[in-house]
Amino acid sequence: MASHGIVLFAHGARDARWAEPFERLSTRLRALRGPSAGPVSLAFLELMSPDLPTAVAEQAAAGVSIVTVVPVFFGQGGHIRRDLPAILDQCRAANPTVEIRCSTAVGEDDEVIEAIAAYCLRQTSS
Amino acid sequence: MASHGIVLFAHGARDARWAEPFERLSTRLRALRGPSAGPVSLAFLELMSPDLPTAVAEQAAAGVSIVTVVPVFFGQGGHIRRDLPAILDQCRAANPTVEIRCSTAVGEDDEVIEAIAAYCLRQTSS
Repeated sequence: MASHGIVLFAHGARDARWAEPFERLSTRLRALRGPSAGPVSLAFLELMSPDLPTAVAEQAAAGVSIVTVVPVFFGQGGHIRRDLPAILDQCRAANPTVEIRCSTAVGEDDEVIEAIAAYCLRQTSS
Repeated sequence: MASHGIVLFAHGARDARWAEPFERLSTRLRALRGPSAGPVSLAFLELMSPDLPTAVAEQAAAGVSIVTVVPVFFGQGGHIRRDLPAILDQCRAANPTVEIRCSTAVGEDDEVIEAIAAYCLRQTSS
């Protein structure tokens, strides 16, 4: 069966603790997908490593046939509309046998917005 | 009854479209809270307006007695650990009659992480 990897693409920051929610997210996603599913990796635009081309190359070397990049960003600004497409082109050129897909940013998803709204609501209930 | 406002605090970006999910979030949160609840505002760290002191001052002028600031950030890096506390101090000094609270970043919440993981999972099911 074709293996389908996921790369969670985040901005990156100077403070290592910034990455904690992304690490929890990748751990949770691996658990949801189960042990026989493809790999889940983190990649960063700047300030943290690996970058996206490195993460995609690692999954390609591990034998995945599809990589889906999920931008873990709220809004779709310049990083998503301009920087990311250029990096994806670079990844596709470097890994021609792998199908590289990209989703919209997680912050555009209605269920993610609903979960954030519910969190906000809980902050005013005490 | 004391009015309790919420200020959704986001990073900001050059591209105006970046703010769209935050606008949807504030609309959804207003609907969940109902018409008799306190105000919901957006505020930005940089590149967009209003800034947090302006948003808090507007809610104070509207008569809220409590403002809860919710950082709509994934990770808690320098912006949340260093910049935000200083801005909150400034808000408290400028609005001494208002109780100004601050939650942890939304990306630290288990249910938000669960919703993002579910979104990621749906990207590999097609």
